Amino acid sequence: MFAPLLQNLRDRHPLVHAITNYVTANDCANLLLACGASPIMADEPEEAPEITARAAGLVLNLGTLHRATLPALPACGRTANARGIPVVLDPVGVGASRFRRDTALRLLREVRFTVIRGNLSEIETLARGQEGAPGVDSTDRVTADNLDACCALVREFARRTGAVVAMSGSVDLVSDGQTVYCIRNGHPMMGLVTGTGCQLSCLTGAFAAANPDRPLEAAAAAVCAMGLCGEIAHARLGPEDGSGSFRTYLMDAVCRLTPDQLEKGARYELR
Amino acid sequence: MFAPLLQNLRDRHPLVHAITNYVTANDCANLLLACGASPIMADEPEEAPEITARAAGLVLNLGTLHRATLPALPACGRTANARGIPVVLDPVGVGASRFRRDTALRLLREVRFTVIRGNLSEIETLARGQEGAPGVDSTDRVTADNLDACCALVREFARRTGAVVAMSGSVDLVSDGQTVYCIRNGHPMMGLVTGTGCQLSCLTGAFAAANPDRPLEAAAAAVCAMGLCGEIAHARLGPEDGSGSFRTYLMDAVCRLTPDQLEKGARYELR
Amino acid sequence: MFAPLLQNLRDRHPLVHAITNYVTANDCANLLLACGASPIMADEPEEAPEITARAAGLVLNLGTLHRATLPALPACGRTANARGIPVVLDPVGVGASRFRRDTALRLLREVRFTVIRGNLSEIETLARGQEGAPGVDSTDRVTADNLDACCALVREFARRTGAVVAMSGSVDLVSDGQTVYCIRNGHPMMGLVTGTGCQLSCLTGAFAAANPDRPLEAAAAAVCAMGLCGEIAHARLGPEDGSGSFRTYLMDAVCRLTPDQLEKGARYELR
Repeated sequence: MFAPLLQNLRDRHPLVHAITNYVTANDCANLLLACGASPIMADEPEEAPEITARAAGLVLNLGTLHRATLPALPACGRTANARGIPVVLDPVGVGASRFRRDTALRLLREVRFTVIRGNLSEIETLARGQEGAPGVDSTDRVTADNLDACCALVREFARRTGAVVAMSGSVDLVSDGQTVYCIRNGHPMMGLVTGTGCQLSCLTGAFAAANPDRPLEAAAAAVCAMGLCGEIAHARLGPEDGSGSFRTYLMDAVCRLTPDQLEKGARYELR
Repeated sequence: MFAPLLQNLRDRHPLVHAITNYVTANDCANLLLACGASPIMADEPEEAPEITARAAGLVLNLGTLHRATLPALPACGRTANARGIPVVLDPVGVGASRFRRDTALRLLREVRFTVIRGNLSEIETLARGQEGAPGVDSTDRVTADNLDACCALVREFARRTGAVVAMSGSVDLVSDGQTVYCIRNGHPMMGLVTGTGCQLSCLTGAFAAANPDRPLEAAAAAVCAMGLCGEIAHARLGPEDGSGSFRTYLMDAVCRLTPDQLEKGARYELR
Repeated sequence: MFAPLLQNLRDRHPLVHAITNYVTANDCANLLLACGASPIMADEPEEAPEITARAAGLVLNLGTLHRATLPALPACGRTANARGIPVVLDPVGVGASRFRRDTALRLLREVRFTVIRGNLSEIETLARGQEGAPGVDSTDRVTADNLDACCALVREFARRTGAVVAMSGSVDLVSDGQTVYCIRNGHPMMGLVTGTGCQLSCLTGAFAAANPDRPLEAAAAAVCAMGLCGEIAHARLGPEDGSGSFRTYLMDAVCRLTPDQLEKGARYELR
C-alpha cells in the first residue's frame, strides 16, 4: 500500500522548504535529496514566504529557535495554507522552554498543519499544555502498558487540530483522528544519532508533498520508511562500527530504499 | 598543468575565511582542511572584516542569508579588495528570492570578485536579471545543444564583471572573458549530496588563495579536482552504499588527491 | 583510575546544554550522544537560561559568535553557577578578533568556569591578553622544548581563574593549579577534521556533568578518551580512507569506548 507513495516521491522530486535548526540542517537537506525530494532551506523572514510559495511542501522545526527569524514560521505557514501545500510541524523540545511552547501554541492557532510529528513528551506538551521531558533526543517510551492511552492521545489531538499526528516512540503512532497506525519499524540505535526525528519530519514533508491528497498514508509511509532504514542500517553494522557509521548507513538506506522494499518491510497494524 | 597549483595549496596552507550557510558550513570547513587549507568561519559583522584581514582568501556564500549578518558580506569583500586577496562569490539559489537577488547584485556593484561560481540558473540570474530555477540543488544542464550559448554567457559575464566565472553543470565552464575551459569531470551522484557546490566554491577559494596570480587556472583546477574526486568517490561505492557513503568518500578523495592524480585525471578542452 | 568516570557518564546520561557554533554543532550533539550524554542546543537568550536550569552541565563555545545571541552566554553561565552545575569554556579562535577576545574576557569576569579548554594560542590569549594565531584549526605545538613553560602557563592560569585548564597540543596539559596531567594520547589526523576541539569540550562537559565532584580527573579523562579515540580511528583507516572516514571512525570509537579500554589506553604522567 505504501509502494506507490514512495514511487510518487521518486518520480515527482518535490521541492520542500525546510525551516530547521542549525544542528541538523545538513542531515535534513541530505535526507531530502536521498529520498528523491529537492531541499531548500531559508529562515530569514524577508525571503522565507517567497520561497515557500515556490515549494510543494513546508517543514517547520522548532529546534534552536531564534527571536530574529521567528516571524518566518507563521508567515511561511500561512503562505503554505493559502497555496494549499502540505505543512509539517516538528515541535522539537517544546517542553524545554516557555519560548518554544509559546511559539508552538501560537503556530497551532495561526497555521493549519497537515502533519504534526514529535515524540511522546512533545505531543503531550502540545496537547495538554504540560511540560515534557527536557532532552530533545530523549527516547520517550510508548509501551504495551500505555499503548491505549497513547492511541487516545494522538486520536484526540488529531481531531482537535485537524492534522495528522505522528508520535514517535518504540511504537510509532500515526492518526488522522479516526484510524491509528501502530508502527513497529525502527531500531533503538536511531536514538544515538542527533536529528533522526528532524529527518523523519522532513521525510514526512516530502511524502506529503508528493502525495498531497493522502496525508495520513503519507505520514505513515514516512514513519515506516525511516524505521525500516534504521533496521537496514543496523543490520549493516560491522564489529568496529558505532553511531558514526550508523548515521552514514541510515542515509545510504534512505537513498537506496525501493517501493517494493518499503511495501514488504513496513510493519504496522491499524487500531 | 594543474599539478603545481595543487602542490602550492598543499604547501602553503592558506587561511581561508568563509562566510557560508549553516546547512553546509561543516562540510565546507572539512573540505578546506582536506585540501590543505585552514578554514575560519565568522559572519558577525562586528568581527568578520577583522578576520578577513588575517586571511589569504575569502568566500562569500549566499545560502541561508540573514538580515542581521548581511552587512558582513560587503564589508569583508571590501576588506579583501583593499588587501588584494582573492574573493569568491557563490550566489546560492539567487533566483529563489528577491532578497538574495538584491544582495547578490549589490555585492557585484561593491566588491570586485576574483571568481564567481554557480550553476546555470544562478549565473543566468546574475547575468541577465532573470529569475532562475527555485531549488539550490537543482542540476541545471549544460548540454551539447546549449554549449555554445553557455560559453558565450560565461565569457560575456566574465568580461563585464572582471571576474573569472565558473559555471557548474554536466559540463563545467570556466572563463576569464577570453579562454573558456570546458571541463568534463564529475559524476551525477554529486547532486545527491547537499553543498557540493558550496564545497567547490571553498575549494576554489583555497586554490585561488594559494595561487593568487593565476585565478583562471586556480578556478579551473578546483573544478577539475572536485569533479575528479566525485569520480573517485563513485568508483568506490559498494553494493549497499548510497549518498551517505558517497559524501564520506568524496571528502576522503579530496584529502588524498595528489598533484599527479589531478594532472592525469583532469579532462577539459579550451574554447 | 579513569574507568569509573566513564562508567558514571554511561550510567547517568547527563543532560548537557551546549551553546556552540553552527559549524560543528551537529558533531557536538552526536559526540554527546555517543559518549552517553543527552545533548540540548539552544542559544536564543530568551530561552537559553531556562534550558541551562534543567541541565547537568553547560558548554560555552565562542565559534561563530553573534551579537544577537551573545547575551545567552553570561546569562547561562550565571545560571549554571547559581545551580552549581559544571561549566566549560571553549574560547574558539579567541585571538582572531577583538569581539571574541572581549567576549571571552567578559565571561571570565562574570562566570566561574569549571574547565577552560583551548589550544596553546587560545589559552595564551586569555592568560596574557596577547593575540594568538588566527586559525581556529591551527595545530599549536606543545613540544619538548616548551613543555616546562606550557606547564607553568596552565598551572598559573588555573590558579588565577579557579578553573581546571585543559590545553590541547601534541602533548595535552590539564591542570587545577597544582597537579599537571601531561597527556600523550591523540593523533595528528584529528587536526584534519573541523571541530575535534569543540567535540572535546563537549566531552569534557559530559565527563564533568557525570562527575561533578572531580573536575580535574573529569577533564583529564575526557582529554585521554578523545585522544585514544583518535588513535583507534587512525588504526582503522584503509588505503582509500581520508579525513571523511576518519571523522566517522572517531565518532564510532567514542560510541564504543569502554571504561576498561580507557583505563588501559590512557597515556599520561603527572608533573
